[in-house]
Amino acid sequence: MTIKRVCFVGDSFVNGTGDPEYLGWTGRICAAIRKQGYDLTYYNLGIRRETSADISTRWLPEASRRLPEGCDGGIVFSFGVNDTTIEQGKGRIPFKDSVKNANQILTVAKGLFPVLMVSPPPIADRGQNMRTAELSQQFAEVCHQLSIPYLDVFSSLQASKVWMDEVAAYDGAHPSASGYSQMAELVQRWKAWQAWFR
Amino acid sequence: MTIKRVCFVGDSFVNGTGDPEYLGWTGRICAAIRKQGYDLTYYNLGIRRETSADISTRWLPEASRRLPEGCDGGIVFSFGVNDTTIEQGKGRIPFKDSVKNANQILTVAKGLFPVLMVSPPPIADRGQNMRTAELSQQFAEVCHQLSIPYLDVFSSLQASKVWMDEVAAYDGAHPSASGYSQMAELVQRWKAWQAWFR
Repeated sequence: MTIKRVCFVGDSFVNGTGDPEYLGWTGRICAAIRKQGYDLTYYNLGIRRETSADISTRWLPEASRRLPEGCDGGIVFSFGVNDTTIEQGKGRIPFKDSVKNANQILTVAKGLFPVLMVSPPPIADRGQNMRTAELSQQFAEVCHQLSIPYLDVFSSLQASKVWMDEVAAYDGAHPSASGYSQMAELVQRWKAWQAWFR
Repeated sequence: MTIKRVCFVGDSFVNGTGDPEYLGWTGRICAAIRKQGYDLTYYNLGIRRETSADISTRWLPEASRRLPEGCDGGIVFSFGVNDTTIEQGKGRIPFKDSVKNANQILTVAKGLFPVLMVSPPPIADRGQNMRTAELSQQFAEVCHQLSIPYLDVFSSLQASKVWMDEVAAYDGAHPSASGYSQMAELVQRWKAWQAWFR
């Protein structure tokens, strides 16, 4: 099956916040797929500040409306950075709740649609990045157990001068067009994404 | 007040279906605003095939999550073409129900957010265009009574060879990049849209 409609579900990085071209990594990978001759419908369901807990309450009604039966829909999830933000002295979502939320979301999603997951990216905060990296490893394990492909973009982007410089120059969290292009390239090269189009 | 987050709520034309650049008219007008120095967050809530009845049941939970209090959010609505499609011998939504739905949606929205409305565009079907033009006039009247700015793009696009040729060449309903660019230009020149950014 070739995927014909895709929902990207997640946070501000899915939304593409900060990108002056308003494509983010999600719009860029859809445009690249279209250039290969596939007629893909693109639904961006990234919301700023949302944690895994927020996403767990709304992803299903939002995605279901956009991927009706018979339309060959798929979902790409990406979230986690907001879970690891410290507010009023503690993380917004306790580590074990983030893992539980991811497991619950992905288990339900997998029963309904083809599903992929992309790791949260790094920001300009060393402490938060350590927590995000740890959470990403847990998300990878959840996906492994559910046989859902998981792409770690965290490591590559943390080593990317383009990503880290743009994040620091904008708001400390989000890159500009070149950073999002780099993230898009990582996803485009991913065999699990490519396998949706053939 | 300058609008900082905008939700575009509507159908496939809001989604940008058919645009190989995955911006549609909505992404293009946000990119243009950004070039003027405004840092706007862009939420696209267009869903293919949705009528005014479909939109009335989901616009509020979807927009509320994306425009929390204090974030200076606004909503641009655009729908109507799917209401006027003939299926099994009759229009999908009776004319008076479309008007009632629009009135109900816009009345609630206006109490919560700054609101604009853009007319449905023409497609490659003369009979449907006549129905859409008639519905658009009714929507204009609803907006007038609610003091919500309404932009008629139908007339200009029906006279646009670029729009009509691209629609005919693609799927009979949706244009490609040049058509969406033309629609974007109409909205960009609109004083009510410009007034959101100053």
